[in-house]
Amino acid sequence: MLKDEEDAYGQLVYAYHRKEEAVEIVERDDGFIDVAGGAKGYFTPYEEWPAWNQEAMKYVRGTVLDVGSGAGRVALYLQERGHDVWGVDNSPMALKVCKERGLRHTILMPATQLSSRVGIFDTILMMGNNFGLFGNPRRARWMLRRFRNMTTPEGRIIAETRDALETDKPEHLWYHEFNRNRGRMPGQLRIRVRFKKYATPWFDYLIVSKDEMEEILRGTPWRVHRYLDGEGGIYIAVLEKV
Amino acid sequence: MLKDEEDAYGQLVYAYHRKEEAVEIVERDDGFIDVAGGAKGYFTPYEEWPAWNQEAMKYVRGTVLDVGSGAGRVALYLQERGHDVWGVDNSPMALKVCKERGLRHTILMPATQLSSRVGIFDTILMMGNNFGLFGNPRRARWMLRRFRNMTTPEGRIIAETRDALETDKPEHLWYHEFNRNRGRMPGQLRIRVRFKKYATPWFDYLIVSKDEMEEILRGTPWRVHRYLDGEGGIYIAVLEKV
Repeated sequence: MLKDEEDAYGQLVYAYHRKEEAVEIVERDDGFIDVAGGAKGYFTPYEEWPAWNQEAMKYVRGTVLDVGSGAGRVALYLQERGHDVWGVDNSPMALKVCKERGLRHTILMPATQLSSRVGIFDTILMMGNNFGLFGNPRRARWMLRRFRNMTTPEGRIIAETRDALETDKPEHLWYHEFNRNRGRMPGQLRIRVRFKKYATPWFDYLIVSKDEMEEILRGTPWRVHRYLDGEGGIYIAVLEKV
Repeated sequence: MLKDEEDAYGQLVYAYHRKEEAVEIVERDDGFIDVAGGAKGYFTPYEEWPAWNQEAMKYVRGTVLDVGSGAGRVALYLQERGHDVWGVDNSPMALKVCKERGLRHTILMPATQLSSRVGIFDTILMMGNNFGLFGNPRRARWMLRRFRNMTTPEGRIIAETRDALETDKPEHLWYHEFNRNRGRMPGQLRIRVRFKKYATPWFDYLIVSKDEMEEILRGTPWRVHRYLDGEGGIYIAVLEKV
């Protein structure tokens, strides 16, 4: 469980929720540090989402598990549309924000501890690059197998991620090479979130190309039903069972 | 001398100078981290300066030493007005920006190594909180004595700083207490600047109230001639010789 001082992401969205200025800082394990943008992005209403996020909502059916629900951006939209939505996050403060904003069902748990004990869903969402919460390809496969028993036979996974290689920034190209050399996937980012005095533990966050996505899916019960293309290498994969 | 990978501030302003996005991140030695604002602020033209900065220019006479000249915001304005201006900075990349922007005289040197060997000036500027470059009260007194021999008899120091205690933010109030408990002045910040993969060494940056300023000046050849008040505890002290 996250300790209070580790809940950097939750404190960030909680600060914004309280109308304070809140900028997310992300530090990478090669010393690279950058601003990930304002907390505002975690609160944008449906009307302001990028087109491929809006499009993805058409694939949502029935009861929903929103993995890494953050400030409730997607979960609250779907709840309003009549879905039973469970928001799961490992951040106590983020879930507090979700609850204060009206989300009825929340689960405090890291994505990698999810199992059928939390329920059976028609749709599992991993929006906002949250496919990355699997951390590494081995754990992704392991969790994808577990997601089989957490979903109805017609169940779907809707996962957003990004092709790491779609960049021309030398500091990122360098890091991909650094990762390959130490036996990791290029987009297997080791990062932590910092906000004021709060810092999450270091964690792996995996971003994958379509080829890498399909390679990971091999041997799991899931196949790509449809891709929804975004900008800058971002895309959403709608997964269905084989 | 700063190593290449330590020139975080210089890389920040150089990136902005090249029209890239550039946000300054400042880390404090208690783990607090925050965004100090965009690099844009180091480039604002005179017309957009806060009133007390504009007002301070009326006190500038003759040849000028601009301590911590950064991207040349103040030095270039004064050079354009006909002053002979020397910009001094410990950041090679910041001085590169100054030169590319047209500043004729630059000196690569930490503020604390300045001596009459660099010249004799009518005005020494420490704008943009750069009184802080003295680092601690002992070094401030030591440098202020040295500034006597670096200035003409009618010479002035124009120094901007900020009352640390003018804040209601708990994370800053906590740090002031933390500082007192370890025998430092409340506003004796120990920080480093980070930008992408660049990080300056940790350094002390001193911000002082008017009372603290006058306490520091005691026993030096300098007295406050005038205060120019800004916002949020920021002020400029125009110092003249006793």
